[in-house]
Amino acid sequence: MTQKPKPTTAPPSAQELTSRLDRVRALMKQRKLDYYVSFDPVNVYYLTNFANSVHERPFILVIPKEGTPKMVCPLLETTHVKSRARLPLEYATYYEFPAPRGQNWFDVYRPLFKDGARVGVESALPYGISKKTPGELVLDDIIEDLRLVKTEYEIGRTVHACDVINEGQKKLFEITRPGVLVLMIYSEVQRLMMERVVADIPAFNVMVTSLTAAVWPPSISHDPHYVLTPFTAMEEGGPHVSIVAGKVDGYGVEVERTFFLGHVPEDAKKPFSVSMEARALAYEMAKPGAVLSEIDAKVRKVIVGAGYGDNILHRTGHGLGITGHEAPYVALGDDRELVPGMIISIEPGVYIKGKGGFRHSDTVLITETGNLNLTPAPDKLEDLIIPVQ
Amino acid sequence: MTQKPKPTTAPPSAQELTSRLDRVRALMKQRKLDYYVSFDPVNVYYLTNFANSVHERPFILVIPKEGTPKMVCPLLETTHVKSRARLPLEYATYYEFPAPRGQNWFDVYRPLFKDGARVGVESALPYGISKKTPGELVLDDIIEDLRLVKTEYEIGRTVHACDVINEGQKKLFEITRPGVLVLMIYSEVQRLMMERVVADIPAFNVMVTSLTAAVWPPSISHDPHYVLTPFTAMEEGGPHVSIVAGKVDGYGVEVERTFFLGHVPEDAKKPFSVSMEARALAYEMAKPGAVLSEIDAKVRKVIVGAGYGDNILHRTGHGLGITGHEAPYVALGDDRELVPGMIISIEPGVYIKGKGGFRHSDTVLITETGNLNLTPAPDKLEDLIIPVQ
Repeated sequence: MTQKPKPTTAPPSAQELTSRLDRVRALMKQRKLDYYVSFDPVNVYYLTNFANSVHERPFILVIPKEGTPKMVCPLLETTHVKSRARLPLEYATYYEFPAPRGQNWFDVYRPLFKDGARVGVESALPYGISKKTPGELVLDDIIEDLRLVKTEYEIGRTVHACDVINEGQKKLFEITRPGVLVLMIYSEVQRLMMERVVADIPAFNVMVTSLTAAVWPPSISHDPHYVLTPFTAMEEGGPHVSIVAGKVDGYGVEVERTFFLGHVPEDAKKPFSVSMEARALAYEMAKPGAVLSEIDAKVRKVIVGAGYGDNILHRTGHGLGITGHEAPYVALGDDRELVPGMIISIEPGVYIKGKGGFRHSDTVLITETGNLNLTPAPDKLEDLIIPVQ
Repeated sequence: MTQKPKPTTAPPSAQELTSRLDRVRALMKQRKLDYYVSFDPVNVYYLTNFANSVHERPFILVIPKEGTPKMVCPLLETTHVKSRARLPLEYATYYEFPAPRGQNWFDVYRPLFKDGARVGVESALPYGISKKTPGELVLDDIIEDLRLVKTEYEIGRTVHACDVINEGQKKLFEITRPGVLVLMIYSEVQRLMMERVVADIPAFNVMVTSLTAAVWPPSISHDPHYVLTPFTAMEEGGPHVSIVAGKVDGYGVEVERTFFLGHVPEDAKKPFSVSMEARALAYEMAKPGAVLSEIDAKVRKVIVGAGYGDNILHRTGHGLGITGHEAPYVALGDDRELVPGMIISIEPGVYIKGKGGFRHSDTVLITETGNLNLTPAPDKLEDLIIPVQ
């Protein structure tokens, strides 16, 4: 078995970020782009280590094919950006939003481009900003593409983030009993994890840190994206489905388990075992060279073959990185191949109204030879029956 | 003095939402639009009461000039949308992201439009979605325009949200002492406010609820958007600048105070009094018919006249509503007039490196005759010196 990579908590070095920029530029050259514009806070964070929250005052990163990238940034925020960004940047500061004629964000933005340029932009670029961008716009998610394969540094951060949620997952099983409210589970598990983050990374960035824990009891676990109310109570039996997830100073991870309080209802046994079979196949297939859509197709086939074709609500998994949900997708529509350094969730699910949901999810690193589960919580039925006195 | 409107905590009625939709359609007619497309989760929430978080699976609201609005929505989320949306909707459900050819979001999205239509879109619409939108695209922030003036219902929700943060603000002054860490202030104040929210609105929507409390001590209060670390400690003296803010089940509000622990440094007195003078002028001017840019211009003049022209970092204020920062802006570039039912912050600031920041902010309702401060915390210097034993 592959050894677990060492956890890291340090901020990214200037070299780490410069090499990311170099990779953006290599792709810009390939695609004959004179500039690349990034607005998506996730991509800006990836390249600079500066995390913004989107509000009416835009931050826009403009990367020319040569020279220092420019950050379009409101006056109010300049010191804030400078204190967090670890990539050398030049600043195009604007006065305020809105501002008097000639002093608006687009007045400092437009002059950053030479006439007649080819400008690469992201899918997420707001239409309003695209209309103020000169030149020929080329939709090309270069940075998202780069984020697909993690660097050694990113893997170390993800391992640390998983250590945090693994602790939360343990706690969740300790305190979840019939009658306990989601509010109490959230409060206790979230606090424990936050204490760990504060201890490990005293200067953690609150803008890219969020931790959550929740359990969908059997009466609603068939509806995995149902938004729970805090007073939702745990029930006797199961399947309960738990989520412990979050972003730990910028790195998104998750662990989810299907479990039972006291006893396993007879009619839960088959769907549980089918979801486990599907999951086992996904782990078996998840190695370098495997095509994502083929994994999803074969995993679905297991579920369909067991008679639960109408009970699939989602793909087998998704990528994780500086967000908790990103490319690549272990999904029928994603024909990319797995590559060492990708991080994905493996989480095929079966959802039956009146019975509940059946899904484990883990944060899984693709290694040179296969994969490594970074969130190895109990996963077998016999270990997922919590005694109730 | 105007009487404070009654707080409300109920979810919006279907009638409230239908009348918002009617207003969208009136503007669509005026602007000769056949469809309006809304992607911004804030605008979707405003019209439907369904709050989504932006991720790779898009939710898109398509409003035809007649008939039921359509929600483009992933299969996984349909029940979730249905359980929260209170406006009658039809669903255009897609399989997954990504999906096999013919089953992607854009495959269900494009057929919603008739050929050759004029389609209104928001500034925030992602460029990637704009490229999949048929017809002639017209950039027009209709829903943002409608959100400018609050309905009676929205005002009632905002009054309730202010009641919550007013309680937090009181607690903050009780516990902030030299040496106390931001982490402790945040934890205690946030918990108190969250308990109040949970008690008042047991089924509150976690997707649109967030509460925060923090204090910038004098060594960094000159930099108002500096992101604090949790271990930042309070100091003897001042100016400290506190923020208690949040979204309470969808309604964004804020209260901010400049205060002192133990004593007021001699050189803090003048900038404090200048910021108070600027603030008083803003309150005096903030009434129906006043032009926002003129308020900001005159308020700035007070600060400039006192010799602090280089110490202004931001406009006098911004709107609040279902976000904590939105139009209208009390800013030089915003030439709109104040109207009864608008809700704005009034928060002129003076920022001096080495001395600190001087800014109060409140959530202020524009009434028929003037304005009403919904967050009336202590604001005079003598009431803002917290004794230190």
